[in-house]
Amino acid sequence: MSKPLTLVNEDLELRARDDHHASLRLWLRLLSCTTLIEDAVRQRLRENFDITLARFDLMAQLERHPDGLTMGELSRRMMVSGGNITVIVDQLEKEKMVLRQIAATDRRSIRVLLTPIGHKTFARMAIEHEQWVIDLFSSLSTRQQDQLHGLLGHLKTRLHQDK
Amino acid sequence: MSKPLTLVNEDLELRARDDHHASLRLWLRLLSCTTLIEDAVRQRLRENFDITLARFDLMAQLERHPDGLTMGELSRRMMVSGGNITVIVDQLEKEKMVLRQIAATDRRSIRVLLTPIGHKTFARMAIEHEQWVIDLFSSLSTRQQDQLHGLLGHLKTRLHQDK
Repeated sequence: MSKPLTLVNEDLELRARDDHHASLRLWLRLLSCTTLIEDAVRQRLRENFDITLARFDLMAQLERHPDGLTMGELSRRMMVSGGNITVIVDQLEKEKMVLRQIAATDRRSIRVLLTPIGHKTFARMAIEHEQWVIDLFSSLSTRQQDQLHGLLGHLKTRLHQDK
Repeated sequence: MSKPLTLVNEDLELRARDDHHASLRLWLRLLSCTTLIEDAVRQRLRENFDITLARFDLMAQLERHPDGLTMGELSRRMMVSGGNITVIVDQLEKEKMVLRQIAATDRRSIRVLLTPIGHKTFARMAIEHEQWVIDLFSSLSTRQQDQLHGLLGHLKTRLHQDK
């Protein structure tokens, strides 16, 4: 899902043929919605803050972990692909948004943390990001959003068992 | 969404904090479900047919277009990222799964088509792929799947207007 925006003007779901099973049509619609939202968020992050979705995602992880995360933990927690984590951390460190800290207890373990400037910068973006998401889901009423949340919850339970 | 499978054992949705707006929690759950399904399909394609999701996706496009597609059309129609289309087409051509055809009317326009072997190979994989998807959605009843399909349809309408 890291395609350039100019290439996603096609309704991906059109691929679902009539003879496909309902679950397959549902899967293509789910994938299509996710791609559309992800692309919209990606575009707005670029236009408004000149940053990539991967970079925003990485800062979001750190924001939740005041004690920092190792590079391995960061990798596992990323929700989007398409960014080299070491490169992003290097850039953010240069811009004084993050710092690398060597743990006193284990010198081999380096943790990445947001700096105060990093926190502040992320917080500013996060407020706008949340508004975009609210806006993107605004065609659904609160009740419909609750329903969708519940149905996806059922789906997820099964998917976790499967792993 | 092209991360190695070993890295996705984390429940991505855990990132949704209590103070996040309901829409943001919904978005993280939607993204989480999509990632889990995509990873499951990716893993099964690799284990059962030793192919990538991008390659399966590319063959799926061609299967729907008996007259072939140009490289540009293929790019626009791909549902997953993470594969260089030229590289995939080159490989498939070498394995006699696809062929490149120069249009009689426009010598500059090269179209990619599935060969009869390609059709047969794809059809065999598509049957299994559909069963996996049916299985992955099996925690939802037919009625719940219809509901989910309808809600995502509402959501999509808005997303298309937004583009």
